[in-house]
Amino acid sequence: MEKRALLYEGKAKKLYETDVENTLWVEYKDDATAFNGEKKEVLVGKGKLNNEISSLLFQKLHEEGINNHFVDRLSETEQAVKKTTIVPLEVVVRNIVAGSLHRRTGIEEGTEVDRPVVEFYYKDDELGDPLINDDHIRLLQAASPVQVKDMKQVAEHVNETLKKHFSDHGLLLVDFKIEFGTTEDGKLLLSDEISPDTCRLWDKETRQKFDKDLFRYGIGSLQEGYTEILQRLGGAAHG
Amino acid sequence: MEKRALLYEGKAKKLYETDVENTLWVEYKDDATAFNGEKKEVLVGKGKLNNEISSLLFQKLHEEGINNHFVDRLSETEQAVKKTTIVPLEVVVRNIVAGSLHRRTGIEEGTEVDRPVVEFYYKDDELGDPLINDDHIRLLQAASPVQVKDMKQVAEHVNETLKKHFSDHGLLLVDFKIEFGTTEDGKLLLSDEISPDTCRLWDKETRQKFDKDLFRYGIGSLQEGYTEILQRLGGAAHG
Ligand SMILES: Nc1ncnc2c1ncn2[C@@H]1O[C@H](COP(=O)(O)OP(=O)(O)O)[C@@H](O)[C@H]1O
Ligand SMILES: Nc1ncnc2c1ncn2[C@@H]1O[C@H](COP(=O)(O)OP(=O)(O)O)[C@@H](O)[C@H]1O
Ligand SMILES: [Mg+2]
Ligand SMILES: [Mg+2]
Repeated sequence: MEKRALLYEGKAKKLYETDVENTLWVEYKDDATAFNGEKKEVLVGKGKLNNEISSLLFQKLHEEGINNHFVDRLSETEQAVKKTTIVPLEVVVRNIVAGSLHRRTGIEEGTEVDRPVVEFYYKDDELGDPLINDDHIRLLQAASPVQVKDMKQVAEHVNETLKKHFSDHGLLLVDFKIEFGTTEDGKLLLSDEISPDTCRLWDKETRQKFDKDLFRYGIGSLQEGYTEILQRLGGAAHG
Repeated sequence: MEKRALLYEGKAKKLYETDVENTLWVEYKDDATAFNGEKKEVLVGKGKLNNEISSLLFQKLHEEGINNHFVDRLSETEQAVKKTTIVPLEVVVRNIVAGSLHRRTGIEEGTEVDRPVVEFYYKDDELGDPLINDDHIRLLQAASPVQVKDMKQVAEHVNETLKKHFSDHGLLLVDFKIEFGTTEDGKLLLSDEISPDTCRLWDKETRQKFDKDLFRYGIGSLQEGYTEILQRLGGAAHG
């Protein structure tokens, strides 16, 4: 496969066209951003770690029958994915109260919820990715009611699968964000990335944080946290 | 009926016990507040105007078969209502984009929505009355799923009724907020107030604002706007 023109550069990844139909070349960057881009840093090694972790998780989901855009890992920082038209929604699933769910509800951080909480955010940097409800989604025509239902269902299935998977490796899946796209034939397909940039992951026993909150709140080395996650998932340890 | 002890003083109203079972004495205050209490002023005459308008609207809803807490207007600034245990949710219905719906979605102010947008906010001043979704309501145990469904349905019925009523009097019902409570026997009952403090009302032709936005954004006399609404609704004109 050949890498062609740069299609889009986001905060964490670059997307390139390829010579293969409906296939994109994704490069994970070392850029770390938080608070809607207000905090920014280059963290050497992050791209590699996220590319590896994301590849492992997408593969795991494939094995469990959850379709997703992942095709192949191409290099330390690159992967091939199926091209989709991204639905402008961030779908968040939460098992434990943290971050904005704590701020929104006043419920103490660390509280386990008895049924996963699913949230939709409107993917719009200028508006600050606001929480929206089903009526807003309809108003914005961001997705059809059927798509919303399907995304919720897939999100819950991803949650069940990854919660179990992380737990088997000593990690608590606190919450995560996923994105969907539609393929040429109009089908929803889980896209983007699943990494410590987009998941909160705590040690099962000590509740030590290993995810992007290390960078967000400046409470530890992001690379050390992500390396810990990769190693626990059985990924190759890089020097 | 006799007025007894002060039960609760909110930003806009005082609630007193009475000698009649399950009945409260409500006094509408002249205090105007906005932006979660950040902006505050005493606007002489506001209590009287809101008490009259709210009484007229609750009566109209009674006539249309929509149960609500209103019992009787007692004086210029006072009314008797059925006592309820307030559900800690603000239910907002929107017909035209304005205020936070514009800020949340980026859709231009004044845009008519083809189906009413219903929103739930968690009634908590310290948290700033945040928007929440059905999963948050369940997590907070703010209301049961059946209550949520019922509140949506009543809210839409209130919207249909009041939209028509205001339209008949030359006014556009842009959006409004209502609150529900539960009665002793556990039934949901529309409570609180429906007034220009809690509705956006524009002139049907010129789209001139007559509601609390006059105070919120300092763009005109609140008393003049509320008086205009009361007069159009056929209320008694006071000196
Ligand atoms: N399979 C895919 N096809 C097309 N676009 C994708 C796919 N997967 C992810 N994207 C998009 O790639 C862009 C770059 O990713 P990222 O750097 O994370 O962007 P952002 O700054 O929006 O977080 C995002 O807009 C994301 O939605
Ligand atoms: N029928 C009722 N029974 C009991 N409480 C009520 C009833 N109607 C309204 N309330 C409550 O009365 C309180 C005072 O009203 P208000 O001054 O508007 O308060 P707020 O500062 O919360 O806006 C509010 O908490 C409101 O929910
Ligand atoms: Mg991203
Ligand atoms: Mg009030």
